[in-house]
Amino acid sequence: MTRSLVVLSGGLDSTVCMAVAARAGAELIAVTFDYGQRHRVELDRAAAVAARFGADHLMVHLDASQWGGSALTDTSIAVPDASEAASAPDRIPVTYVPARNLIFLSVAMGVAEARDADDVYLGINALDYSGYPDCRPEFVASFAATAALATKRGVEGRPIPIRTPLVDLTKAGIVTLGIEVGAPLELTWSCYRGGARPCGTCDSCVLRAKGFAEAGVPDPALG
Amino acid sequence: MTRSLVVLSGGLDSTVCMAVAARAGAELIAVTFDYGQRHRVELDRAAAVAARFGADHLMVHLDASQWGGSALTDTSIAVPDASEAASAPDRIPVTYVPARNLIFLSVAMGVAEARDADDVYLGINALDYSGYPDCRPEFVASFAATAALATKRGVEGRPIPIRTPLVDLTKAGIVTLGIEVGAPLELTWSCYRGGARPCGTCDSCVLRAKGFAEAGVPDPALG
Repeated sequence: MTRSLVVLSGGLDSTVCMAVAARAGAELIAVTFDYGQRHRVELDRAAAVAARFGADHLMVHLDASQWGGSALTDTSIAVPDASEAASAPDRIPVTYVPARNLIFLSVAMGVAEARDADDVYLGINALDYSGYPDCRPEFVASFAATAALATKRGVEGRPIPIRTPLVDLTKAGIVTLGIEVGAPLELTWSCYRGGARPCGTCDSCVLRAKGFAEAGVPDPALG
Repeated sequence: MTRSLVVLSGGLDSTVCMAVAARAGAELIAVTFDYGQRHRVELDRAAAVAARFGADHLMVHLDASQWGGSALTDTSIAVPDASEAASAPDRIPVTYVPARNLIFLSVAMGVAEARDADDVYLGINALDYSGYPDCRPEFVASFAATAALATKRGVEGRPIPIRTPLVDLTKAGIVTLGIEVGAPLELTWSCYRGGARPCGTCDSCVLRAKGFAEAGVPDPALG
């Protein structure tokens, strides 16, 4: 039996990744980062998703609000609506968290090595996304090569592969795949703001709504 | 005035790095990791070194003992004496912490980007060291390229350089350089074990003692 580590935020993409890894028959380790994000809703959802899959769940605390630099970790920077973000499509948005996936993947590598995991899943996609540099496949390929140099596993000739099954999918494609593999989409949370219900206007909500609309299915998290 | 971020453990090497960066006239940010290591002595020393240089000091908490896999983060694995380590010179020692410098540098990149630092200093050296893969210059070069792909700074054509001024020095050379640049070597702590005084027999103590002996100066931390 293989053992897979999944970087799990509690959002749509990482939850579909969990279901893909589960379908492959792997024993699952889920790693969630409590990194000082604006709200804790997604952390509760991540715990619920991990429990649904019977995964060993590690909640890793790393307070990025100590240094800030993002609307997601510094409450003095407002989360913009998607319409504002769209007005500057070439700019990296203020919701970018400095080096986030670099940090998340690095910790994931450490956990994967300590727990002898066979691979690491990361739910990035570079099509319907917010324009973050650390969601691009060229970053992940470069990271894997760097991690092979950094780790005992790499030196021993058994580098830990990073699987990104969603990287070439649209948001609609991710929704469709999620339904196909039985991902508990009703448990997921995408909104950057942490209200009682998703705001519907931030970039993440708008991308999610577009995905469900194009897939032709209702969003079960809004039900 | 430039602004430099220094990854500061409170040990000999990172303290000499601080002094090198200070001599270059930079405004200093020191980042220290409280990562669930066996003892807290080095954290106190890091704080003392940062204060000596008037650096902005961030203590970053990330509990690697949650996953373990190292004698430094799992108290059920004993720290070996240097003589045991020397009996298997081709093996990566049990004091290797999975992905440690990958994680430290990743967080350093996030802080450097958020705080608009000009460069990052890392006190690795690949000559008199314990054989950790993440202390090799080829790892650091690969990491810098990966970080340039991951970060806003990289995308904007201003990647953050990583300076490793000690990488080609022997431990004796580091001691000599430290004295030359006025590093407070008396504040530093190298011992893997956290007793009232350095144990003198772990790999880190033995490397340090060899360095001072070959440099022909007494170790002020033992005074």
